Amino acid sequence: KTATLEDARRVIAAGEERARELGQPMNIAVVDSGGNLIAHERMDGAWIGSVDISINKAFTARSFDIETEALGSNSQPGNQFFGIHTSNHGRIMIFAGGVPLLSDGEVVGAVGVSGGDGKQDQTVAEAAASAF
Amino acid sequence: KTATLEDARRVIAAGEERARELGQPMNIAVVDSGGNLIAHERMDGAWIGSVDISINKAFTARSFDIETEALGSNSQPGNQFFGIHTSNHGRIMIFAGGVPLLSDGEVVGAVGVSGGDGKQDQTVAEAAASAF
Amino acid sequence: KTATLEDARRVIAAGEERARELGQPMNIAVVDSGGNLIAHERMDGAWIGSVDISINKAFTARSFDIETEALGSNSQPGNQFFGIHTSNHGRIMIFAGGVPLLSDGEVVGAVGVSGGDGKQDQTVAEAAASAF
Amino acid sequence: KTATLEDARRVIAAGEERARELGQPMNIAVVDSGGNLIAHERMDGAWIGSVDISINKAFTARSFDIETEALGSNSQPGNQFFGIHTSNHGRIMIFAGGVPLLSDGEVVGAVGVSGGDGKQDQTVAEAAASAF
Repeated sequence: KTATLEDARRVIAAGEERARELGQPMNIAVVDSGGNLIAHERMDGAWIGSVDISINKAFTARSFDIETEALGSNSQPGNQFFGIHTSNHGRIMIFAGGVPLLSDGEVVGAVGVSGGDGKQDQTVAEAAASAF
Repeated sequence: KTATLEDARRVIAAGEERARELGQPMNIAVVDSGGNLIAHERMDGAWIGSVDISINKAFTARSFDIETEALGSNSQPGNQFFGIHTSNHGRIMIFAGGVPLLSDGEVVGAVGVSGGDGKQDQTVAEAAASAF
Repeated sequence: KTATLEDARRVIAAGEERARELGQPMNIAVVDSGGNLIAHERMDGAWIGSVDISINKAFTARSFDIETEALGSNSQPGNQFFGIHTSNHGRIMIFAGGVPLLSDGEVVGAVGVSGGDGKQDQTVAEAAASAF
Repeated sequence: KTATLEDARRVIAAGEERARELGQPMNIAVVDSGGNLIAHERMDGAWIGSVDISINKAFTARSFDIETEALGSNSQPGNQFFGIHTSNHGRIMIFAGGVPLLSDGEVVGAVGVSGGDGKQDQTVAEAAASAF
């Protein structure tokens, strides 16, 4: 069971709508149940450094079945997962904006958002995920 | 001057239409004038190994303002660019499927296609580019 | 739908039995439908350089739904996929020993074998896959 | 002198038994005296992001002949090894779950566990190592 391209488009569209409301252009990416990219869009004017981050936030959320924001709070210096951000060849993102996509309680993909501050990324990711 | 997200969507949609005619699911990616990803889509059932390849065919086509098929013919053993495929951290793709996007004779982006044999990838990339 | 750990163990055990018949210690790896490692074993005395190769032969066979030997024949200089071996961050293996695992005609994983010459690797991979 | 495949299987089996008791699926990996992977298993449902982490916790525990948890306490900001996690091409893991395997006081391999919180990973790694 996995998210499909049609799912990914709907999720990305919902995220972009929220990004426009915030007035902040974003990168939005969706991965499947294997952590592999289904679709990515960069809104005009969004940061080019966020292409990689959005894709890898989605990868991270699926890789550990967790929101990247929650993983991040466990990965600060002194906390139990500090250092996890150097694993998986630099693909683990430990700040807000990656959210798993669930179907019947099972994680079947994830969305990753990057382009604003942490609160904006998280807000857009949640709006995107809720369209799944 | 650069390709926009709206351009990328139109290009990808045209490529997917051609892919459906061929009955071969594809990965299609579009980069901007800076070689940076604007959008990527993987059709359901398309190879997961082609995510990276489609994005990097587009990167390559913009990086050298050339179709990847033409670059490939210059990059075979004994030819003038043999070895170029290991440059740029493995991002240079030297086989068919990457096509520059031109506006008034200027390269402002590129499309990359991967998911079939070389002829199929090239056919889809050309259909995609012609929608630009 | 994906190969499970129990599947992987059965596949690896069958491969190792064949490897013992050949008198050649091997690395054998199995990935799931997303290309992610399920299990790997290195028989005592097998090459340490083959750890990476066995895992990535399995990854490649799933990434393109093809035996790595067949991909290799398309990836020689002058052929349509020459250069593919530098894509996917060096994870694409284009010589014999990677075989997809099919269930009802669908690729749901793959096995990768490395430790001998090409013919030995392929023989062991086929024996392994046939236990799936 | 080094851990063998038979050792690795026994160690992994003991770890998996403990993981089942905890109700938490895990990735478990064993490396030899050279730090090279002997065997890895991912229990069904365990995180795919933990494949890399389990292998590299084992690599780290053998590379410095130390439990990764102890290395981690020396690698926090302000401590003597802070920064070590970016060495060795991102293979050094500085959180709980990697334990050396000793024979007659000599480190001859290591086990790495990833799939739960730090306490769970450590508990499973210790159970695994005690079967050596």
